[in-house]
Amino acid sequence: MRATLIHAAGDIRLETVPDPVLSTGGDAVVRVTASCVCGSDLWPFRGVTETKKAHRIGHEFIGVVEAVGDDVTTLKAGDFVIAPFYVCCGECANCRNGVSTSCLTGGWWGSDVRDLGFADGAQGELVRVPLADGTLVNVSASLDGGQPDDALIPSLLTLADVMGTGHHAAVSAGVREGSTVAVVGDGAVGLCGVLAAKRLGAGRIIAMSRHEARQAIAREFGATDVVQERGDDGVEAVRALTGGIGADAVLECVGTKESMDQALRSARPGGRVGFVGVPNGGPELPIRTMFGTNVGVVGGVAPVRGYIPELLADVLSGAIDPGRVFDLELPLAEVADAYVAMDERRATKVLLRP
Amino acid sequence: MRATLIHAAGDIRLETVPDPVLSTGGDAVVRVTASCVCGSDLWPFRGVTETKKAHRIGHEFIGVVEAVGDDVTTLKAGDFVIAPFYVCCGECANCRNGVSTSCLTGGWWGSDVRDLGFADGAQGELVRVPLADGTLVNVSASLDGGQPDDALIPSLLTLADVMGTGHHAAVSAGVREGSTVAVVGDGAVGLCGVLAAKRLGAGRIIAMSRHEARQAIAREFGATDVVQERGDDGVEAVRALTGGIGADAVLECVGTKESMDQALRSARPGGRVGFVGVPNGGPELPIRTMFGTNVGVVGGVAPVRGYIPELLADVLSGAIDPGRVFDLELPLAEVADAYVAMDERRATKVLLRP
Repeated sequence: MRATLIHAAGDIRLETVPDPVLSTGGDAVVRVTASCVCGSDLWPFRGVTETKKAHRIGHEFIGVVEAVGDDVTTLKAGDFVIAPFYVCCGECANCRNGVSTSCLTGGWWGSDVRDLGFADGAQGELVRVPLADGTLVNVSASLDGGQPDDALIPSLLTLADVMGTGHHAAVSAGVREGSTVAVVGDGAVGLCGVLAAKRLGAGRIIAMSRHEARQAIAREFGATDVVQERGDDGVEAVRALTGGIGADAVLECVGTKESMDQALRSARPGGRVGFVGVPNGGPELPIRTMFGTNVGVVGGVAPVRGYIPELLADVLSGAIDPGRVFDLELPLAEVADAYVAMDERRATKVLLRP
Repeated sequence: MRATLIHAAGDIRLETVPDPVLSTGGDAVVRVTASCVCGSDLWPFRGVTETKKAHRIGHEFIGVVEAVGDDVTTLKAGDFVIAPFYVCCGECANCRNGVSTSCLTGGWWGSDVRDLGFADGAQGELVRVPLADGTLVNVSASLDGGQPDDALIPSLLTLADVMGTGHHAAVSAGVREGSTVAVVGDGAVGLCGVLAAKRLGAGRIIAMSRHEARQAIAREFGATDVVQERGDDGVEAVRALTGGIGADAVLECVGTKESMDQALRSARPGGRVGFVGVPNGGPELPIRTMFGTNVGVVGGVAPVRGYIPELLADVLSGAIDPGRVFDLELPLAEVADAYVAMDERRATKVLLRP
């Protein structure tokens, strides 16, 4: 089959690799219907994180089950599934606590999952899924006829990562009915954060964005205000919209020192920053400032597996349409172009079809 | 009147200063019944923070109102009151949000409260209280006869700071019915954190302490386990008591780099650190670790004013007896000895009577 590898910064290649096979009783093999490129894939692409040797890449996919191992009980060949961006058992203490990203037996796509063997990256044609019952969500079980309309593909794919991650930012920031919310970051996760905040009942949602097309999606998703300024001016603009004190909840969806600083300063005393931007080698958090303001910082790598059922229900009912974050679709053969389009900010998020 | 000043590290003096007078319509003057020395008073005493010029010190007191200004509506001469460790209006947006430590017009004892003038430090005989209606809690209103028994004095005094601060750690850490809780720090705040966790329904409470007398109070307050180890061994000991994963909630009640590290590593994935230890010039928080584990950090300077009514009800009913943290009582004339006793850890907390 064909699958994507990263060899070095700027060097993305589609190559022929061995087809995956069932190797434990808990495995499934899934034929990918759609995958995509994540903002976090850009860190190695840009050389911000080092690629020491070539490896498979991609961690968001949806598809159709081709085969399952003897121990799999919730899936059969032909079922349409959503995979979260990691592998998890669904049964250990951390999974039961809702932190399946810290699963005691799970792991990550494109690498070895402990002693369960290699799990393919998602930017390919087929993926071997260890711990299939715990990892995959069976969409067919929620659908008459078992298969989703093609128009649903983008929104279903967002449940693999960005919509669940935006939701995690909002939940971590404590967004509730009537909250004032500021969202730092206008990438796919930030936009999904706006949508998640709206879904949770936020009363005022301030999208911080300088990009016209993204501002338009933010407004469509529920943003009541857009702030273009950054730094001190951005803080002042948020305060002016929030009674002079700052937002109840701030969603940090970037992961840089500047974005976290913006988030911390945009929250009101006693407010909360929900952070999901992958911290890029730092920064450290200024605890004395947090002490003085009682602004808490909660979040991390989003345990999206647990969020998929509730978000899926809203996608299927048409209540939310997070697939709007995809503004470019390419065949898998052009995966290298997909990276370039996102790197150059010509695309917010690129959907890939094998 | 007599009041305490710090002149330099190790140099605490009781001196004669002018009696306070009513200077705004919202003022009260309170005669101190009891005050005490705070763990945070030890930072300048030890020279860890610099004392550039001599200043009044102390921020915890209870007492009897001597006089009130014309605009005060909730207090009259003779009322017994608890003062939180800061001055607040009770009416601004931050006070209404429960973050009265960020009051837009308030300030701190022993210093100028914006344009409202100087508020005396608490380790003295009399204190001028600006914003008296917002700041002071009228205990007389809850008591037949209006005055508390002498036996209640220590517990009432803890509501000025340490009991409310321990409660803030527990609330910030999300302690609820059945939570597993670890408490880092066995000073008065840590011990009150144990009591607060018990009061909120925690199922298992692990006190981290190497000090026998403090361990005994921790057990009396509700600790189910004591861990003497620190560092890696301490983390392992907490995990062994919490199903191998760490505690749901960790209360950080010290404020050093080592104690925060202990707290972060003692929490389970997805758990929460509630921090109230005054960060002593740092440390910064390791955000990449927080990202990977989803351990959130919430807390800060405790807005105890808002907690006093509910905690007072439990003190008056006898449900909690936080005054047990006082293990030494001295006359105000011996205030310098009180600092030395706490510095040398001969006393957990010293109560002072003018």
